[in-house]
Amino acid sequence: MMETTATRATPFERRDGVLLVGGIPADRLAERVGRTPFFAYDRALIDQRVGEVRAALPAGIELSYAVKANPMPALLQHMAGLVDGFDVASAGELGEALNTTTPPHRVSFAGPGKSTAELRQAVAAGVTVELESGNELVRLREVGELLGIRARVALRVNPDFSVRGSAMQLGGGPQQFGIDAERVPAVLAELAAADMDFQGFHVFAGSQNLDAESICEAQRATVRLVAGLAEAAPGPVRYLNLGGGFGIPYTSRDRPLALGRIGENLAELLETQVRGLLPQARVVIELGRYLVGEAGVYLTRVVDRKESRGRTYLVVDGGLHHQLAASGNFGQVIRRNYPVALACRDDAGEGETVDVVGCLCTPLDLLADKVRLPPAGIGDLVAVFCAGAYGLTASPTAFLGHPPPAEVLV
Amino acid sequence: MMETTATRATPFERRDGVLLVGGIPADRLAERVGRTPFFAYDRALIDQRVGEVRAALPAGIELSYAVKANPMPALLQHMAGLVDGFDVASAGELGEALNTTTPPHRVSFAGPGKSTAELRQAVAAGVTVELESGNELVRLREVGELLGIRARVALRVNPDFSVRGSAMQLGGGPQQFGIDAERVPAVLAELAAADMDFQGFHVFAGSQNLDAESICEAQRATVRLVAGLAEAAPGPVRYLNLGGGFGIPYTSRDRPLALGRIGENLAELLETQVRGLLPQARVVIELGRYLVGEAGVYLTRVVDRKESRGRTYLVVDGGLHHQLAASGNFGQVIRRNYPVALACRDDAGEGETVDVVGCLCTPLDLLADKVRLPPAGIGDLVAVFCAGAYGLTASPTAFLGHPPPAEVLV
Repeated sequence: MMETTATRATPFERRDGVLLVGGIPADRLAERVGRTPFFAYDRALIDQRVGEVRAALPAGIELSYAVKANPMPALLQHMAGLVDGFDVASAGELGEALNTTTPPHRVSFAGPGKSTAELRQAVAAGVTVELESGNELVRLREVGELLGIRARVALRVNPDFSVRGSAMQLGGGPQQFGIDAERVPAVLAELAAADMDFQGFHVFAGSQNLDAESICEAQRATVRLVAGLAEAAPGPVRYLNLGGGFGIPYTSRDRPLALGRIGENLAELLETQVRGLLPQARVVIELGRYLVGEAGVYLTRVVDRKESRGRTYLVVDGGLHHQLAASGNFGQVIRRNYPVALACRDDAGEGETVDVVGCLCTPLDLLADKVRLPPAGIGDLVAVFCAGAYGLTASPTAFLGHPPPAEVLV
Repeated sequence: MMETTATRATPFERRDGVLLVGGIPADRLAERVGRTPFFAYDRALIDQRVGEVRAALPAGIELSYAVKANPMPALLQHMAGLVDGFDVASAGELGEALNTTTPPHRVSFAGPGKSTAELRQAVAAGVTVELESGNELVRLREVGELLGIRARVALRVNPDFSVRGSAMQLGGGPQQFGIDAERVPAVLAELAAADMDFQGFHVFAGSQNLDAESICEAQRATVRLVAGLAEAAPGPVRYLNLGGGFGIPYTSRDRPLALGRIGENLAELLETQVRGLLPQARVVIELGRYLVGEAGVYLTRVVDRKESRGRTYLVVDGGLHHQLAASGNFGQVIRRNYPVALACRDDAGEGETVDVVGCLCTPLDLLADKVRLPPAGIGDLVAVFCAGAYGLTASPTAFLGHPPPAEVLV
């Protein structure tokens, strides 16, 4: 008899106790990949998440994928069929985005340190450049003149408010991101004098936020702010990027975001504010982590099991060089375990308390601290969840000279 | 008139206010490299540091280089002419070490998660495998039998003491590293029954320690511990790796290590203990960061300068994707600035307080927080010091899709 069960705190299912990724048992998938460790991303879980977002958001809201969350080329190709556009943060990401079927005018390029060479590539491509400073406007104008192409441009605004609840603040107060709201009218005047294709505004105030109410508040404040700035614009606002910042639960203390609440708020905002004040604006929500973060798992094999002075260590063939955030060493102040399980033994039944440590010669390489798992031995596959975003590319792959992990989309 | 001055808190000198790396002005070096950002390592500063260590340590102490600190191939070739051996932590590092003139028997391989494939490579190469567990002994014996080669082996011991003052504890209490001291006699008995070439012991208790006295204490305790363990060994101890852990000053709060004190202690230990108790032992000190960390600088160019609500930001073309530790996001609990300067303007004279931020679209990408620098503009080169160890390879190079930085040894 086959029994399908949920793996605690993750959207992945099991069949006969074995974790399924894209419907394939994890141990079989490991054989197909041919080596461990590897990242596996589940197409159906991504589809499901995008579907939930589409269902929650009102009609007329466009969905953009922030490539930085996971730029795996196959995954980008898949996302191109699901979302309305891409946000990129470098010429490298721009190139990958353009390799999909997404049209250039649905690609936006943000980032506080764009080089002139990157601006040239962006203008030649015809994507929307999100200006982060007055200096960048000057450079962009020069590039447009040089190439004889009218640059598509939006302003990234550093708002005059900040958002409660964000793990990372990217707006409010002094910032390296965007143009301070109070300076925007002056930059718009310069922009009006240049021959550029003005699109609109991008306001991004924070990331990894699990508090729906504070996201709603930021969205309301953003519409208010942009409606005011629009009066100084050289033309109608055709693009309003409200940012994203939707968080996902990483640890047992985190509660999933109340997506429905955000959808209701956006519907009301569109109805009562945006349609009237900014009638020509495409309204865009930009999400990365929220769309793919929970759809990925990092699979690594136990190479040693050892007891040391009352503690049991499972030493795996992966580690922080592949999944730095799970070790708690990427910007986290307090380290908490990501969800971890044995891929081929169910969570149910008798367990033991172990530390899951990576293969690197550093005490930082801790994947799970005093976690309860079924008894495990050498050769067992360990699954570290929440590995779909800011995993492989946000990790020091070359650290200690191990080969890079494989990545599969199934 | 040419004037040569020291750059505060770093061993690099300036000529006419311009930073010199390997005797070459930083701006000229940037032209030679052809792009920014890049890491530059100064051969003469490495030579000088190795010379200082050799002068401080008593004759008869061997010096091993921990490849993990900086595995750049050209640098390893240079180190091969300066040190007596290499310590490696993966098959990848092993391969690079063997590409130098260092003989295999002067290479040791430590690491808690060595794969069986890695053990095969190590045994075939003839390097010393430092066992981290009883399970690893079983696998190593099988590999040796399969290949028909007597494996060279040492035991990495998790001591029954810990070291004060280490930024990272790798010994004492429960650990994933090494074999608990109290279990060593049982493992030695198994080893005696196998046909292996027993070399000795490695005890490594911590890293990045700036307190000479606690390092001395650990070295004394290590000799005491090993002298006791030697009684259970299947043969004379021919290898005693005392570890390293010598720290370097990264921030203005750090004081350089009192190297002379460590040398005196080692001389006394050799004289009064080691020669008598372990007469056949090669005594090895293993250093990585201490030999190369201060000899490297990360050079990155200002791409934007912006004011935001009372703060001035220099946005550079590099960032945490190349030099994660300088951003304070690699295992640090409290973020403190690494030494930073303008490469082509002297520190002297009027300055301003700025934030130096990387080009990545994340607030984590902060290279210097409220640092005093001479007035800087777009195009200026910023030097971030202490970049010779755990820099490029300890950073998430692929993060946000920028090209990898260059590396030069001059």
